[in-house]
Amino acid sequence: MYNFIVENEAFEGVKKTAGKIAVDFEKVFGKKPEIFPVLGNVDKSFIFATLGKSPIVDNLIKEGKFDSSAINGKREIYQIKFLDDKTILICGSDKRGTIYGLFALSEYIGVSPLHFWGDVEPARRENIEFNKNIEVISKEPSVKYRGFFINDEWPCFGNWTNNRFGGFTAEMYDHVFELLLRLKGNYLWPAMWSSSFALDGPGNLNEELADIYGVVIGASHHEPCLRASEEWGKKGNENIYGKAWNFYTNRENILKYWEDGLKRSGKYEKIITIGMRGEYDSSMLGDNSSVKENVELLKDIIKNQRELIKKHVNSNLDEVPQLLALYKEVEEYFYGCDASSGCDVKGLKYWDELDGVICMLCEDNFGFMRTLPTPDMKNRKGGFGMYYHFDYHGGPISYEWMPSTSYERTWEQLSMAYDYGIKDVWIVNVGDLKFNEVPLAYFLALAYDFEKWGTASPNSIDEYTTQWLAHTFPSVNLEVRNKMAGVLHGYIRMNAMRRPEALNADIYHPCHYEETDKMLELANCIDTANEEIFLLLSEDEKNAYYSTIYFPAKTSVNLLRMHLYSAKNAHYAKQGKKAANKYADLVTQCINNDKNLMQEFGKFKNGKWKGMELEQHIGFTKWNDDNYRNPLRTLVEPVHKPRLCVSRKDRGEIYSKTYGNPMTILAYDFLYDVNKKVIIEIANDGIDTLDYVIEQDAPCDWLKISSVKGTIEDQIDIELSVIPNKLTNEIQSVKLLIKAEETVVAVDVKAKIIDISQLPPKTHLQNNGVIVIPSNQYYDKKDLSSGAAFTELANYGRSGTGMKVFPTTANFSEKEESPSLHYRFLLEDDGEFVIETWTTPTNPVEINKPLRFILNGGNKKQIVTTVPADFKAGSNADIRWQLGVLDNIRKTEVICKFKKGIQEISINALDPNFILEKILIYKEENKPLPSYLGP
Amino acid sequence: MYNFIVENEAFEGVKKTAGKIAVDFEKVFGKKPEIFPVLGNVDKSFIFATLGKSPIVDNLIKEGKFDSSAINGKREIYQIKFLDDKTILICGSDKRGTIYGLFALSEYIGVSPLHFWGDVEPARRENIEFNKNIEVISKEPSVKYRGFFINDEWPCFGNWTNNRFGGFTAEMYDHVFELLLRLKGNYLWPAMWSSSFALDGPGNLNEELADIYGVVIGASHHEPCLRASEEWGKKGNENIYGKAWNFYTNRENILKYWEDGLKRSGKYEKIITIGMRGEYDSSMLGDNSSVKENVELLKDIIKNQRELIKKHVNSNLDEVPQLLALYKEVEEYFYGCDASSGCDVKGLKYWDELDGVICMLCEDNFGFMRTLPTPDMKNRKGGFGMYYHFDYHGGPISYEWMPSTSYERTWEQLSMAYDYGIKDVWIVNVGDLKFNEVPLAYFLALAYDFEKWGTASPNSIDEYTTQWLAHTFPSVNLEVRNKMAGVLHGYIRMNAMRRPEALNADIYHPCHYEETDKMLELANCIDTANEEIFLLLSEDEKNAYYSTIYFPAKTSVNLLRMHLYSAKNAHYAKQGKKAANKYADLVTQCINNDKNLMQEFGKFKNGKWKGMELEQHIGFTKWNDDNYRNPLRTLVEPVHKPRLCVSRKDRGEIYSKTYGNPMTILAYDFLYDVNKKVIIEIANDGIDTLDYVIEQDAPCDWLKISSVKGTIEDQIDIELSVIPNKLTNEIQSVKLLIKAEETVVAVDVKAKIIDISQLPPKTHLQNNGVIVIPSNQYYDKKDLSSGAAFTELANYGRSGTGMKVFPTTANFSEKEESPSLHYRFLLEDDGEFVIETWTTPTNPVEINKPLRFILNGGNKKQIVTTVPADFKAGSNADIRWQLGVLDNIRKTEVICKFKKGIQEISINALDPNFILEKILIYKEENKPLPSYLGP
Repeated sequence: MYNFIVENEAFEGVKKTAGKIAVDFEKVFGKKPEIFPVLGNVDKSFIFATLGKSPIVDNLIKEGKFDSSAINGKREIYQIKFLDDKTILICGSDKRGTIYGLFALSEYIGVSPLHFWGDVEPARRENIEFNKNIEVISKEPSVKYRGFFINDEWPCFGNWTNNRFGGFTAEMYDHVFELLLRLKGNYLWPAMWSSSFALDGPGNLNEELADIYGVVIGASHHEPCLRASEEWGKKGNENIYGKAWNFYTNRENILKYWEDGLKRSGKYEKIITIGMRGEYDSSMLGDNSSVKENVELLKDIIKNQRELIKKHVNSNLDEVPQLLALYKEVEEYFYGCDASSGCDVKGLKYWDELDGVICMLCEDNFGFMRTLPTPDMKNRKGGFGMYYHFDYHGGPISYEWMPSTSYERTWEQLSMAYDYGIKDVWIVNVGDLKFNEVPLAYFLALAYDFEKWGTASPNSIDEYTTQWLAHTFPSVNLEVRNKMAGVLHGYIRMNAMRRPEALNADIYHPCHYEETDKMLELANCIDTANEEIFLLLSEDEKNAYYSTIYFPAKTSVNLLRMHLYSAKNAHYAKQGKKAANKYADLVTQCINNDKNLMQEFGKFKNGKWKGMELEQHIGFTKWNDDNYRNPLRTLVEPVHKPRLCVSRKDRGEIYSKTYGNPMTILAYDFLYDVNKKVIIEIANDGIDTLDYVIEQDAPCDWLKISSVKGTIEDQIDIELSVIPNKLTNEIQSVKLLIKAEETVVAVDVKAKIIDISQLPPKTHLQNNGVIVIPSNQYYDKKDLSSGAAFTELANYGRSGTGMKVFPTTANFSEKEESPSLHYRFLLEDDGEFVIETWTTPTNPVEINKPLRFILNGGNKKQIVTTVPADFKAGSNADIRWQLGVLDNIRKTEVICKFKKGIQEISINALDPNFILEKILIYKEENKPLPSYLGP
Repeated sequence: MYNFIVENEAFEGVKKTAGKIAVDFEKVFGKKPEIFPVLGNVDKSFIFATLGKSPIVDNLIKEGKFDSSAINGKREIYQIKFLDDKTILICGSDKRGTIYGLFALSEYIGVSPLHFWGDVEPARRENIEFNKNIEVISKEPSVKYRGFFINDEWPCFGNWTNNRFGGFTAEMYDHVFELLLRLKGNYLWPAMWSSSFALDGPGNLNEELADIYGVVIGASHHEPCLRASEEWGKKGNENIYGKAWNFYTNRENILKYWEDGLKRSGKYEKIITIGMRGEYDSSMLGDNSSVKENVELLKDIIKNQRELIKKHVNSNLDEVPQLLALYKEVEEYFYGCDASSGCDVKGLKYWDELDGVICMLCEDNFGFMRTLPTPDMKNRKGGFGMYYHFDYHGGPISYEWMPSTSYERTWEQLSMAYDYGIKDVWIVNVGDLKFNEVPLAYFLALAYDFEKWGTASPNSIDEYTTQWLAHTFPSVNLEVRNKMAGVLHGYIRMNAMRRPEALNADIYHPCHYEETDKMLELANCIDTANEEIFLLLSEDEKNAYYSTIYFPAKTSVNLLRMHLYSAKNAHYAKQGKKAANKYADLVTQCINNDKNLMQEFGKFKNGKWKGMELEQHIGFTKWNDDNYRNPLRTLVEPVHKPRLCVSRKDRGEIYSKTYGNPMTILAYDFLYDVNKKVIIEIANDGIDTLDYVIEQDAPCDWLKISSVKGTIEDQIDIELSVIPNKLTNEIQSVKLLIKAEETVVAVDVKAKIIDISQLPPKTHLQNNGVIVIPSNQYYDKKDLSSGAAFTELANYGRSGTGMKVFPTTANFSEKEESPSLHYRFLLEDDGEFVIETWTTPTNPVEINKPLRFILNGGNKKQIVTTVPADFKAGSNADIRWQLGVLDNIRKTEVICKFKKGIQEISINALDPNFILEKILIYKEENKPLPSYLGP
């Protein structure tokens, strides 16, 4: 068994970490290593050292036994090296480097970074022989400051930590810091809704502990000068600095407040937020103030803040990391405005004072980049940061419950940010942290090793996940782990199609395109796999799986089902069918399941996470959970006698008429798709049971009917399908008569085979008048010799695929050659056609610029604007933006004239951040039916 | 005890009737009179005789003991006269005259004409002394042929008579004839959906019996030449006349068919229908045939028919009543078309052959006259008939269940028909007869004695009803009888606001103007009175009341409630309130009540009426009961904690927000109406109970709040009202804060008193921007010296009042002086105002003419067209007409400009059949909220 050598000279943080690693060893091997301050005469040892803080390493270097040149002067790296058969050195270039090395060792013996937050118990092992495999020189992190923000922490995180740790204390933060460091992060914005990090340790214990571990503490955009926002307005406390959080009216007091903050907390490693915003995002100068006045005020504030920092933190301001958040309310003051807008003001952007300050940008709160550094800003000394969200408390609808941002989206948008030069700070809002610990691991992996996972590796999510699952569930076989990957991404992508809080019974269409049934099928797939996996696991694995994947997936699936069942219930109730009542029962079951799942989670591991299950998540009607609604259930009273009511499963119309000629259902689907199944719902909307028969007006050998007679309690599905090799390219017809009691409903079925052998490859055909082309189904694609090219994003977006130009910074003028995609399709008529492009609801990356592409079609070149220049990304005043982030798709229609026959369109890139998911082509009169996901 | 003298020479019908009267006497006095053929030596006698069929009367005349001059040569009259102390003569001018006299005697001793159909048992009496009061010379009936049509007789009448009489037999028709004659009718269209009157007696028993009683049999517009339509196409029977019901293709056979019919049935007293229409209303010449071709074909048909009548019925055609129905499909051929329409054809109207034929017109199937005789037609020899409906099987939605045409409507529209010269035939479709027996009595009273009840007696429904109730419930005290009148007209007027089958949860608005609550209150009023009356009655009275009023009222009220509760349920469910669940239970109760009421009726009097309860009547979705629907019930799952949700009872918006400033409900109602009550619904839409308090921002002595604190299970109503004498004409304000848990909702209340002492009388004021003027609230009305004047119709229409010009035949040109109504109102602003007139959905009475009035307002005279000339009354192709008869109101909007201050409008008559119910005045931006009945 190895012992640990940690010298007295070592960083306190390294010592503490060594203690944690010792516990990890004990968990794995059943025995805790002893920790010695000096090399002793022991069997086997790890030496945990940091360059410049280790006499042993100094000696080894001196003796030529260790060459530190690979790590010397580097940021946050470590080297692991066998000194001899018995002794392994883990040496960091600096404190965090050493700590990362220690946690790397822990991972090496099988301890997951999520051992606490994800309940991942390491496998017990008898012993281990370390070999040369362990030797490594780690890389410098790609992004300088990488971390997360515990935010929106009530009711979950707050209740949890109050119950378990008596508040937002150092005892709790120890777990947070450890997670951050194990995931090779270094930066944290602590919780701040009701707590003040600097005061709640208790006392300064939080700040002390963070500093010991080398965790850099920052704060969000409205907490300047190391002061938590809660410190100003603590409920019930008289504030010695006066009442008004307004630099204009309460200047001296506010300066004193900041000065006291810097004096108190400036001694710790921090990124100091500068700037100021009014209370509750209000303007300090009033709504009628000019841009110029606000710019002047901000300059005054920042100048004073930096004076205070110089005085109380470090006289060399370049040595103090500072951050100015360009959050939307400051944006205007940063960019200024030009004469054309009627206000000619140079923004802060041009102000030298800010040269060394990190400019922190923010996406639109829903994971889509907004303004990114323009070329003229790219090389600024202070660099850039990005505030990203896995959790958001705000409009149009908050998402604070289960993960709902796909890894693919995170990869795609954050890679773009990095490509645009945002490399100094990456911070992600993880809400209550619990349930986001898994996506967080990916976020920090991307930030730490962008070279490996970033732009250079499109579509690398599978590889990452395979690795992550191998580390997290090493004893589980690969097939099961692959299934786990399916559940993990399955539920997150499902949530990403429509964030859970924004779901209700009116989202997925209850019948058109059988959308709700398809979503139920997806939910069932995820749920079945989830359950199957769970049964195969050992007790410890069950806990880890439950905590990290099973529970979030299970409860997400249940929530979706609740709304889908409610939709089906409402649909069948509207049709007057008693089948509605069964769906009402299913809704009730889901409501109860939801309650039970939450209670069960609260009791998991004797209440380890009690509180974390409290987030409201059902049917939001406002931006927050005020007036959230459980789904409705509608009951149908059957009529007084058995009665026939027929419908297509994918349509709302019902066919139920006794008087006169029978109503006729059209089933022309087989004219377009001989593999289609048409489902006819035959219902009894009256009491008792109903016998039906299906007759046909003529013999017909090409049609299969799943059942031609039977007895119906409430409803059965009859499946119509065709036998393709009995069809020709002439239209065949047959009329079915569905008969029960005195009612007859006719079904007119038509079919033909389409000969595609004469068509060029990738020629898309219409179905019921609509041609649907997934963006990756181009027949050709033109890349530029410069390398700029559309690249497929796998499993991307709501449509499951996307085409985006890389490099992501590439943009083109209208005249210039640009990468293009080419699509081919067959038209049966001449005329005007709607070309409906479905794009990812990304934003223009430059302020006041549009997002466009070029459409070539019907002998015409059109510039299509998907986002106009006056679009307000991230603004709840702009319904266009709201709809985009709610629906996760943006639809743009243009008209093209075509002759019938084989036709083409092509799409040329113009502006960056354009991602094409799908194209629909149809005549106005064939407009697709209303639905969420489309045909 | 009196005996009856009925001579051998008497009409068979008189003898049979004497037998019935004898039974009536037995019922009343416990002893059956003996019937002698000659005057004998008995104590007291009635002689039942007919002029010319009685040797006794011949003798009396000869002896100068009876002067027959008053009745001789008259139609259907009778004289009752004491011959001496012991002998009373009832002598008819003809057979029906005598029979009417006999039934008058029966009524005199207290036997109701409805004794069978309305289950009205006469009161038992010890004895009776007849006195001179009984002497009478009756009048000649106003309308020559008066009767009803048993129609749409499945499932009710058909099942009933099959069960009870083994089919549509003479045994059953005996009851029908008796009812007709007791009500002094003389004309019947027998049932014809599945039966043939001439064949089902069995054999000719029906025709024989009718003839004996003097009941004139007619047939509807598609049963010419004494043939029932069923005779042609009897299911399963081979037709010896060929298959095609098409004179064009099957001429000889059809002529033979008619000839055989006339030979068989021409010997009985009949009105023979002539003309022909295609099967199922289709055109015999095809849809593309010209008007000219059709006119020629019809002429050919009619000529041949009349030849056959001449040959087989009576060589003097003037002695054979014949009838041509101008039902909508024949109308074009009757009126022809003029050159301006591109087809210049003289219609049948100008054809001499038809001079002596009765032209039967029809209203629009919903009780509103369509074309009425134009002055040039008025004096035609054959005269006119009218086919009226108390029951209709057809579009837009059938009404075949409980009575839903108000007496007021019947009076108003039929009086108009009479005024226009329709005096030869009145027939009313009574559906299954049962439940329409009470309105039928009124219809026949009006037809029999138009001089008393018709145009000369506007607003005489109360008087008629008082008399009818006095005859039907003689032992019940007047106060209770008045209450009965309230229930009778209450439920029928309620049904007339929206016919029962056309009700659903989307008709009356669930909250705007508290419409649903007001309708529930109306239903409760009727129901409470109905129950109270029932308890006060004797057993026999209970039966009569149950059969004629209680049951139709009870079940109508229950049906309305069912839909209203469903509307409230949906409303509260939409608001997310658990109060919805209580309404769901109430809907269930109503559904069960409905079933129970029907079962109970089926068992009434040991199943006397079994079958008559079978009509479907709930939630029609088509024109007939195909796919009728029971109302839906939606269940709300309360949220996880008690939660406040506030609303105005008369609005849909809910106020429920914890975050940020409280939402504010506006209660400015007291600015317009200090007698108004504003109801605030305070709901707990979560589990358990919720404590609330209402605080106010300042003391306020003028506002009353019904409760300022309490505990809420699901929902309570808080009533806000003001104390007028604490208010001034300055606006007073107070803000209420409704608080519960962490939620606060504000209510902003404003009030002032409006000083109306300075305003001229009948100055209408706005309420929330809308001025509502019932048509009878004019400040002046200008009548013409000729007598033409607007007259108020009490309890009329959906609005409860109407103004119509009498004489109803009056019409005016634009230039000419016409009667007018003058309304005054106060405007608070200048501007453009919408003048929305609510008129009864009557039709123009001349073909291809509009229905208009003149509006004078804002210094402008406008001709307002409520119905344009291309309107198709009675046509399901015209949605405008459909909406009118469904909604029972027609709204027409015009714009007027006014200055603020006291303003006026006046309405001048132009076209006949214009009835004004209400006027709304508002600016476009103050448009009334959606509702059925309006503000």
